[in-house]
Amino acid sequence: MKQYVVAVVGAMGAVGKEMLDTLERRSFPVGTLKALDVEVNVGKEITFNGKQVKVELSCADAFKGVDIALFAVADKVSLALAPEAVKNGAVVIDNSAAWRMDENTPLVVPEVNPEALREHKGIIANPNCSTIIAMVPLKPLHDYAGIKRIIASTFQAVSGAGIAGLNELRDQAQQVLNGEEINPQAFAHQIAFNLIPHIDYFEENAYTHEEMKMFREGRKILGIPDLMVNCTCVRVPVYRSHSESITIETERPLSPEIVREVLAKAPGVKVVDDPANKEYPMPVDTANQDLIYVGRIREDISSESKNGITFWCSGDQIRKGAAVNAVQIAEKMLEMELI
Amino acid sequence: MKQYVVAVVGAMGAVGKEMLDTLERRSFPVGTLKALDVEVNVGKEITFNGKQVKVELSCADAFKGVDIALFAVADKVSLALAPEAVKNGAVVIDNSAAWRMDENTPLVVPEVNPEALREHKGIIANPNCSTIIAMVPLKPLHDYAGIKRIIASTFQAVSGAGIAGLNELRDQAQQVLNGEEINPQAFAHQIAFNLIPHIDYFEENAYTHEEMKMFREGRKILGIPDLMVNCTCVRVPVYRSHSESITIETERPLSPEIVREVLAKAPGVKVVDDPANKEYPMPVDTANQDLIYVGRIREDISSESKNGITFWCSGDQIRKGAAVNAVQIAEKMLEMELI
Repeated sequence: MKQYVVAVVGAMGAVGKEMLDTLERRSFPVGTLKALDVEVNVGKEITFNGKQVKVELSCADAFKGVDIALFAVADKVSLALAPEAVKNGAVVIDNSAAWRMDENTPLVVPEVNPEALREHKGIIANPNCSTIIAMVPLKPLHDYAGIKRIIASTFQAVSGAGIAGLNELRDQAQQVLNGEEINPQAFAHQIAFNLIPHIDYFEENAYTHEEMKMFREGRKILGIPDLMVNCTCVRVPVYRSHSESITIETERPLSPEIVREVLAKAPGVKVVDDPANKEYPMPVDTANQDLIYVGRIREDISSESKNGITFWCSGDQIRKGAAVNAVQIAEKMLEMELI
Repeated sequence: MKQYVVAVVGAMGAVGKEMLDTLERRSFPVGTLKALDVEVNVGKEITFNGKQVKVELSCADAFKGVDIALFAVADKVSLALAPEAVKNGAVVIDNSAAWRMDENTPLVVPEVNPEALREHKGIIANPNCSTIIAMVPLKPLHDYAGIKRIIASTFQAVSGAGIAGLNELRDQAQQVLNGEEINPQAFAHQIAFNLIPHIDYFEENAYTHEEMKMFREGRKILGIPDLMVNCTCVRVPVYRSHSESITIETERPLSPEIVREVLAKAPGVKVVDDPANKEYPMPVDTANQDLIYVGRIREDISSESKNGITFWCSGDQIRKGAAVNAVQIAEKMLEMELI
């Protein structure tokens, strides 16, 4: 089997590290691995497939000879470096928000819209984490009944703010337990034993940018230009795995029984919906695995049309919400012979 | 001013203790206080208005001479004892779910439906905590625009499970931080650094009883027999204060500006809605005070009718969600000369 030169950009971050683990765990055909990061991390070593790899500087020249570059960096870094990687012949799969709404860039969840990959011009965007987690179960329901409207409230783990977010929750929880003063850095306010209804910046319509990602990216990924989406995004004191309370309105009737049937066959989904045995998706169970768990499936009893369904889902934000989805895009591109 | 004989039943529980604090803090005209509880707590002492009060056994005879009995006990205890208290001449204000849907029992949030108190037959029910917190801001919006439909996701603090819930979160958080094994008791699963989408038992329609309280109690309190309510209740690792993400559909147009104007004048509400300065309701800010904070007020951009509003609110579950509401009912009854 052909082996590829794969670069991970931002290799020392939470998502970058998970990309390295994912490439290894899923036996991606990596011939040579390049671990790229900012200057302060250059020279550090990571272990990949049992070998030590030195971190190199992420700059235009670093992409010479690279086939596939997985980017886990800030928007502005991606804006500057992704086109350089493409110029050097690499296919870029980018986890930032920089290219997602660009009309020349496919925005892909492999279980949902793999065909969009055929239109790529060198860069493929990985959607926002909470959007990916919603799209995986929503797509098969859309195919069955036609989704018109989504009302979602998210319960987002601190891992969305990377290693700094994870450390802050751990340290701050201990400080609160000790009765010590806290000093929020990674988040605007105390996150331990608290909730912050604010992720990313506020847009003019008083929704946060994170909330509008579900609206804009949802339309693009599902291919429904007039999809109506109302999202409220909340940061919660959970380490890993975002959870979401979702209500949908569909064109055609959809019962809880059919939802369970459709989702039982859906790729990337695990139905965990046995209330009598206290089984439903929870972040502690969905962390460190690749599926989106879906449960609490029931009729929307507030819907006059009876075409409404409410459910609860949870998925690992760093895995399927970021690193795993990126690697799956690369796998799908190999399968489709696009690389 | 006339002084009353006031009994607090369940005086050693989380809500009972808060009732005692609330009576004291709000200078309720208590002549004699009776602290009633189960046998194991009999003889213990509490301090009320600077005096030591011995806990007595909560039994029928204990209500002789009592004017007002505030009940903070389990449903079955209330079912057995509240009628005995009434027989002895007391007015009962009951925090359990036992009497809420009884057609002879008013279910009251004093800011919302005080007139219902006139119909009382001895027992007045205090609504469910997450229902109270939603009703306080919803009532003035209903008066203005007519609410047809509510879609809510709740983020409920562990205080809903009393002192056992508070202790379990604190101890379990420390155990998780130490890497020790945990042993859930107060909740069905780990609550520290986790979310549990399950409060109270599951009903036949796959909603939890807690979720259906918002449906049933909401209709009764707001006096809208055909109100449509879809609620998802989630336990979160927060000590005090429930938060709620709420979307409403109204009969008549309602803009975010009008919502802010209406709520600024509404009793029991504090509008905290200044995203530019990172100000929005959060449980750490709403704990240990009596108001419901409302923020993140915005148009429901998924609504075709444009008669939709989305907001986020937070309020102390033990205070306004339980003890304070009960004492406010007693205050209102004195004001209305019903006691």
